[in-house]
Amino acid sequence: MVGVCRRFRTKPRALFSAKLSPSCSSPLILPPVRIPTQTAHRLLSNGVHRTRSAEIMSGRPIAKDIISKVASEISRMKAAIGSVPGLAVVLVGNREDSQAFVNIKLKACNKVGIETSIVRLPQDCTQNRLIDVVSGFNKNPSVHGIIVQLPLPQHLDEERVINFVSPEKDVDGFHPLNMGNLALRGKEPLFIPCAPKACIELLLRYGVEIVGKNAVVIGRSKIAGLSTSLLLQRHHATVCTVHSFTNNPEQITRRADIVVSDVGIPNIVGCDWLMPGAVVVDMGTNSVKDPSSRRGFRITGDVCYEEAVKVVSAITPVPGGVGPVVLSMLLSNILDSAKRAFGFT
Amino acid sequence: MVGVCRRFRTKPRALFSAKLSPSCSSPLILPPVRIPTQTAHRLLSNGVHRTRSAEIMSGRPIAKDIISKVASEISRMKAAIGSVPGLAVVLVGNREDSQAFVNIKLKACNKVGIETSIVRLPQDCTQNRLIDVVSGFNKNPSVHGIIVQLPLPQHLDEERVINFVSPEKDVDGFHPLNMGNLALRGKEPLFIPCAPKACIELLLRYGVEIVGKNAVVIGRSKIAGLSTSLLLQRHHATVCTVHSFTNNPEQITRRADIVVSDVGIPNIVGCDWLMPGAVVVDMGTNSVKDPSSRRGFRITGDVCYEEAVKVVSAITPVPGGVGPVVLSMLLSNILDSAKRAFGFT
Repeated sequence: MVGVCRRFRTKPRALFSAKLSPSCSSPLILPPVRIPTQTAHRLLSNGVHRTRSAEIMSGRPIAKDIISKVASEISRMKAAIGSVPGLAVVLVGNREDSQAFVNIKLKACNKVGIETSIVRLPQDCTQNRLIDVVSGFNKNPSVHGIIVQLPLPQHLDEERVINFVSPEKDVDGFHPLNMGNLALRGKEPLFIPCAPKACIELLLRYGVEIVGKNAVVIGRSKIAGLSTSLLLQRHHATVCTVHSFTNNPEQITRRADIVVSDVGIPNIVGCDWLMPGAVVVDMGTNSVKDPSSRRGFRITGDVCYEEAVKVVSAITPVPGGVGPVVLSMLLSNILDSAKRAFGFT
Repeated sequence: MVGVCRRFRTKPRALFSAKLSPSCSSPLILPPVRIPTQTAHRLLSNGVHRTRSAEIMSGRPIAKDIISKVASEISRMKAAIGSVPGLAVVLVGNREDSQAFVNIKLKACNKVGIETSIVRLPQDCTQNRLIDVVSGFNKNPSVHGIIVQLPLPQHLDEERVINFVSPEKDVDGFHPLNMGNLALRGKEPLFIPCAPKACIELLLRYGVEIVGKNAVVIGRSKIAGLSTSLLLQRHHATVCTVHSFTNNPEQITRRADIVVSDVGIPNIVGCDWLMPGAVVVDMGTNSVKDPSSRRGFRITGDVCYEEAVKVVSAITPVPGGVGPVVLSMLLSNILDSAKRAFGFT
């Protein structure tokens, strides 16, 4: 019997070992602040464990930094070639939350100098009408990013519409071609979806080592969970994806150094799901009733924050963690698209 | 604080719950033979554990069955519409192993009635010449599957060539568009790569439940490991992907109900990697020197078979496990492509 080659005993390499597209490793990403991940417990001289506070991975300063750099790049582009990036949004129907999300995106674009256009279609618009609108944006050279705000009314074929967006303008990164290139080593997607891109940005900026770490992603949506699993794997984490068919999600998650939650259920991830010292990225954005709040509700994550913060070494708050960074990644994707289209470096 | 909804406590659903494209759930797949997975150990009345033999998941009868049905369908197609599926192969250079693999594929095609054509290009052919050949096959209506035999000579851009194959003729399933559709729930790839398709076929035919099970895939190649992870996840396994940066691969793999190995290192998976009663699919095809063999070498898998068979409840042998089924899946993919092209049901 031939000797066994223990290739699996290679030590994890340093950070930034994963080759990413220029859009991902752009100057927008500062070298990380080196905050070592430590267990949340310190053994004192008398043998008593004391819990130290978890690092709160706030997304706001990161978002601010990225947005500032995007704005600066757009100014430079405008001065050099007289053009700026353009985003086109298609909004179907009258959902208040969709309108609110679109407003946030348009406002953020305007602040950094991205030109925007929006087409509003009625709730009962036809599939063909919607496809025509998208087709027009596909062909428009001043449009570098197209967003079809989801969800669409039920009579419309959401997947067909998403597929119709040109992959070169798919700034959300949902087109199967971009997803396939994200999955495949050696391939580079034109766009990485904003949520996983934000997740990795947070981890890297807070000095969390990913290579060789055990990561559990709870949830497998295309918007966040699935693409985050794929991106973490590109960064050489050992990734396990937990979902609604998993029999023992708490047990599996408890073994993870890095936990990313994309479930959409408030407080589902309790401290019994978490290894002491784990790093937690909470992608949940759940609206829960709160009579004590002025608006009558508040936004909370998937993770039971008050419990988790006593156990983990670092955690993203909700709100104020992943959310702000996601938006900044959208702006970054739109800029990258325009740079590619104009051949501007 | 709102109540916690324990959605993760849902019991696993029955087999075949994952929606697959008609090409995957075609009549070629017989209802599985119900062989219950049992632990390899039985507790005897006197409290002593006895190891029972593992089920050997031979691929040959399955391959034979699939090939027979493909041949039958092609006969039916020929009688009905006077056409048969066509496979085109591009072979660059003089590698003996590539020539051998191509010969196996062509022979298998000819046996079931698939028309074949092969273009041989010299080792030093240009990228443009290769692209022209592929382009010709893309446009040819009597060609339903295109294989560019890998690896290509180093001066050629393999990824660019694979991308150039029309996704509608990508019977290997490697095109990023097909890979993205495989990854995305609610999407259906035109082709599932042959190796993961073979893996799932073996598991289902031997009555191995996948839904809710913990699966570890060792390796993340596009040919096998990556796509198998994605397909197992579509079947609602909880999948963890182990690779060369994983620090503790034995420990992680030991927790798995289903282990799939795509490493390419003989005997790397020993019994210390395996939970008693696990089910093992060995995708390794390693050529090792063996003076006792007539040819001076033999083919062995990644799993240390002699050790594993005492521990697991079921295992695929190498050779004779996954390999035969992979080839039959290629024929199945070519047939499906032709059926789509002709609108033949």
